Amino acid sequence: ALLEANGNLSCRCAKTTRTFIPPWKYSSIEVWPVGSSCWRQEVMIKLKSRERVCVDPDTPWVKKLLQDLANLRKKEAPH
Amino acid sequence: ALLEANGNLSCRCAKTTRTFIPPWKYSSIEVWPVGSSCWRQEVMIKLKSRERVCVDPDTPWVKKLLQDLANLRKKEAPH
Repeated sequence: ALLEANGNLSCRCAKTTRTFIPPWKYSSIEVWPVGSSCWRQEVMIKLKSRERVCVDPDTPWVKKLLQDLANLRKKEAPH
Repeated sequence: ALLEANGNLSCRCAKTTRTFIPPWKYSSIEVWPVGSSCWRQEVMIKLKSRERVCVDPDTPWVKKLLQDLANLRKKEAPH
């Protein structure tokens, strides 16, 4: 079961963009970790317009976005 | 358009869990930033079993997971 996906690897993103997308356009960000169903990490931004955009996880603004998802949370909930 | 979602705020997660979910069960992780459609950040783990689980973003293992999404990428692509 652990590697069940490996017999049927399927990536979601045929192509990715490096073009910056301003955060106010986002509805959500979905991330598929490496190996969960694809050989590479995939990051998809879902826009409020319902569009879905695959972005390149190696692009600096996407790296920053992923960092912010983890870090913003901490700032909001200081204990 | 910028604040269009604010007239119709809707959170996805009626309740969240703090129970650890082992990473090999994940298909993907979807994150809704604060204010995109809900007053709080929402984190949903989609399992390979097709189940969807809302997890508490304040729980240490979830914070770690979000960090890893950003950091693992760096380790894989050293330039």
